[in-house]
Amino acid sequence: MKTIKKLLVANRGEIALRVMRTAKEMGIKTVAVYSEADRNALHVRYADEAILLGPPPSNQSYLLGDKIIEESLRLGVDAIHPGYGFLSENAEFSQKVRDAGLMFLGPKPYAIDTMGDKLKAKQAVKNYDVPLVPGTDEAITDVPAAQKLAEEIGYPVLIKAAAGGGGKGMRIVRGSDEFVEQMNLAVSEATSAFGNGSVFIEKYVDSPRHIEIQVLADQHGNVVHLFERECSVQRRHQKVVEEAPSSILTPETRDAMGLAAVNVAKACDYEGAGTVEFIYDASGSFYFLEMNTRLQVEHPVTELITGVDLVREQIRIAEGRELSFAQEDLTIHGHAVEVRVYAEDPSENFMPDIGNLKLYQRPQGPGIRVDDGLEQGMDVPIYYDPMIAKLIVHAGNREMAMDRMIRAIDEYRIGGVKTTLPFCRFTMEHEAFRSGDFDTHFVQKHYEPSMLNRIDDEGAEVAALMGAWILSTQSAKAVESTSSSAGSNAWRRNRTL
Amino acid sequence: MKTIKKLLVANRGEIALRVMRTAKEMGIKTVAVYSEADRNALHVRYADEAILLGPPPSNQSYLLGDKIIEESLRLGVDAIHPGYGFLSENAEFSQKVRDAGLMFLGPKPYAIDTMGDKLKAKQAVKNYDVPLVPGTDEAITDVPAAQKLAEEIGYPVLIKAAAGGGGKGMRIVRGSDEFVEQMNLAVSEATSAFGNGSVFIEKYVDSPRHIEIQVLADQHGNVVHLFERECSVQRRHQKVVEEAPSSILTPETRDAMGLAAVNVAKACDYEGAGTVEFIYDASGSFYFLEMNTRLQVEHPVTELITGVDLVREQIRIAEGRELSFAQEDLTIHGHAVEVRVYAEDPSENFMPDIGNLKLYQRPQGPGIRVDDGLEQGMDVPIYYDPMIAKLIVHAGNREMAMDRMIRAIDEYRIGGVKTTLPFCRFTMEHEAFRSGDFDTHFVQKHYEPSMLNRIDDEGAEVAALMGAWILSTQSAKAVESTSSSAGSNAWRRNRTL
Repeated sequence: MKTIKKLLVANRGEIALRVMRTAKEMGIKTVAVYSEADRNALHVRYADEAILLGPPPSNQSYLLGDKIIEESLRLGVDAIHPGYGFLSENAEFSQKVRDAGLMFLGPKPYAIDTMGDKLKAKQAVKNYDVPLVPGTDEAITDVPAAQKLAEEIGYPVLIKAAAGGGGKGMRIVRGSDEFVEQMNLAVSEATSAFGNGSVFIEKYVDSPRHIEIQVLADQHGNVVHLFERECSVQRRHQKVVEEAPSSILTPETRDAMGLAAVNVAKACDYEGAGTVEFIYDASGSFYFLEMNTRLQVEHPVTELITGVDLVREQIRIAEGRELSFAQEDLTIHGHAVEVRVYAEDPSENFMPDIGNLKLYQRPQGPGIRVDDGLEQGMDVPIYYDPMIAKLIVHAGNREMAMDRMIRAIDEYRIGGVKTTLPFCRFTMEHEAFRSGDFDTHFVQKHYEPSMLNRIDDEGAEVAALMGAWILSTQSAKAVESTSSSAGSNAWRRNRTL
Repeated sequence: MKTIKKLLVANRGEIALRVMRTAKEMGIKTVAVYSEADRNALHVRYADEAILLGPPPSNQSYLLGDKIIEESLRLGVDAIHPGYGFLSENAEFSQKVRDAGLMFLGPKPYAIDTMGDKLKAKQAVKNYDVPLVPGTDEAITDVPAAQKLAEEIGYPVLIKAAAGGGGKGMRIVRGSDEFVEQMNLAVSEATSAFGNGSVFIEKYVDSPRHIEIQVLADQHGNVVHLFERECSVQRRHQKVVEEAPSSILTPETRDAMGLAAVNVAKACDYEGAGTVEFIYDASGSFYFLEMNTRLQVEHPVTELITGVDLVREQIRIAEGRELSFAQEDLTIHGHAVEVRVYAEDPSENFMPDIGNLKLYQRPQGPGIRVDDGLEQGMDVPIYYDPMIAKLIVHAGNREMAMDRMIRAIDEYRIGGVKTTLPFCRFTMEHEAFRSGDFDTHFVQKHYEPSMLNRIDDEGAEVAALMGAWILSTQSAKAVESTSSSAGSNAWRRNRTL
């Protein structure tokens, strides 16, 4: 068992800071890496040492695995944490890190490789009692054989081109009577689009919900799950709101999904923290989608409901320690919700709105956690994902958590760029979300930019200017009028930012 | 059952903000009150409405109970939350609020009155199986009678002047052989100091620890306790570090103290949130000291380990609702520690160091909560308690919580005033505190100002200036050198602030 004394975080922004915070708590020295665009980034200032990798974009800096390993060796680093994105799911990098005699805070290359390929993943879990979306394993062109399969699977089914992409050659068939017609259409569409008419037939999941299970696996064969996160609210297949636990799972389904997730981890000889993603349908069935072999963006909601520091566990596992808890030691406390605060304009189809964070004041008080990598006066860099922060709340139950999130969003003061906060607030107030009756189509079904309160947006602009002015005066001068009942002020105007 | 729609918070600073945050989450409109010194205070900006009460000091503003009630009626307020300090334990104010037809978020006048007087409190709990410090109820001058009492109580005993104060006429007697001599000395000292030689004899508590129990009582006779907080680290009888749970209680003692606390609440027909304070001695015995009939400064540690929002419960109880949980529903999750960040210089006998908060950046990340009422650029007002903030951490166990607190203290960037943070860091690292082997004499026993790392203090000054400079540049300019391994920077220099 080797103890990590110095950890390099091969990432940037909020996740680099988040990992380094736990490392510091464990007495581990930290090394940051950065690109020329990130010279002043908080993760660089936070670390004990920092390495300039090169200019943006990432293939000239954050993706330079060999250089990162070389610098790690030079600085006496023991272990590398890849964060998410960048090199985190690169099996070759994981191998090279190990070959260099360093610890990699993630699974072995075999697990990354297997779970990074849908067919390999399916193959791996086959004997592990993991429910897969029912369907054909092989492409098919024969119509009567296909129809027989469809009957076995049960309608609705999805016909999709084997060579497909972008929805071409894709058909939803809701009943036996329309199968032949739709199959013929799909085959001819696929033939003309891809020069290959063969198709897959699989179960079509109506009203799908994205529910994923966090797992932890040590090097001694112990695997536990830390319950689920639901991430069904997405825009352009990107999660924007995540919560734990899910509003829909029964304890029985939770146990069954947890067991399936543990089995997926066992199937690929997993090690460390990972996430098994499932699709959950209107009938209460769930099917394995894929495994993310890294720490997820939305891991804090799991930390809040379980009290487990996932980064600490990653470090302990890499050091060769056994998990310090068993499945039965884990319980769910309260409810946690995370929203991703992107520098995007939700009233303009979530268009990125990069710029300077002229005003940046985080919400405070009970049950609030903000994981971010920027502060007031900094620019949101154009080279990377435009996520400014993750705003996470924890409360006694789901309703209180939503109300706390609304309060937190109202306290968040961001000026200079448009953010997704008004959309997140819209979601927290929406009847479909509040009742738990929603799926991955939430945005398409329920959201129109006109539903955001534009008047309050203007208020926020005023607030931003006022806030900046308040901060620019070094001593607190009179802002409030002396009238006995002040009607409005910066913070209040900002309420629906 | 009446629902609160508009709540006035008759307080200032962090506690006013903390109460208003929960009110907002519950959809309750908020009214702030403020003195002329607090015109720009955050609690004023946070509220929906704000009332100027008058100039400082408090007897011309925050203590004007009649004016507060009058304005409450004028604004259609339903309820008043008194916070802590000011009018919070004023039985007359509690009565007047009720007489005006408003709800008071605290107990009835009888409970405030009874628990505000040590003799009345003792009398009230007499038949409720609450352990009291063994001793005489009445003053005594007769030496043989006193010695007989001392033998019954058991040594060591404390002899203290009935008319006493300031330690005069106070004697610790450790054995029978020295009793007569010490009693004679105490009586003669008391006679010359107060003109009254009569004394009380009571058990002297060796190595005392301050352990208190949080209780909640509704209007329907339901009383629960929310476990203990230990607040033994004090300077000048003022708590500076608090934690939950205590490092010393066995589950059996916890249950016994909890039961005793519930009985104290029952003894005074308590309603709302209250705290029963005990003294805990080296032998594991505990004795009732007093009850604080209000929300405590240190309530957040209880919120973190139980998941209960105490302000929400206060509001629900005032509305006449029943407690939504029973004793057996409550469990302890992890460990929480709070330190009070005062504008005081711990290297100069904790002398107040009022001034402008030139730099103020809160720590962030997992398991951290900061309750405060100031932001960068504001002055720490001279009229009130110089507490800048409460820094609270939550983690899986006590050791992790202490390590997290050290990390949080290192991230806290405060420039312009000296703070107690270096002392708090000293405590977190001290072997006596870490091992749990400490008592209320911790500061006298273990602390010397020279033990604080002065070199790092200088580093913090540099950091403060650098931080201010970074913030003064509107766009992020190059601060970090381009050297591949940056050796020092603002955040890092500040590590031991």
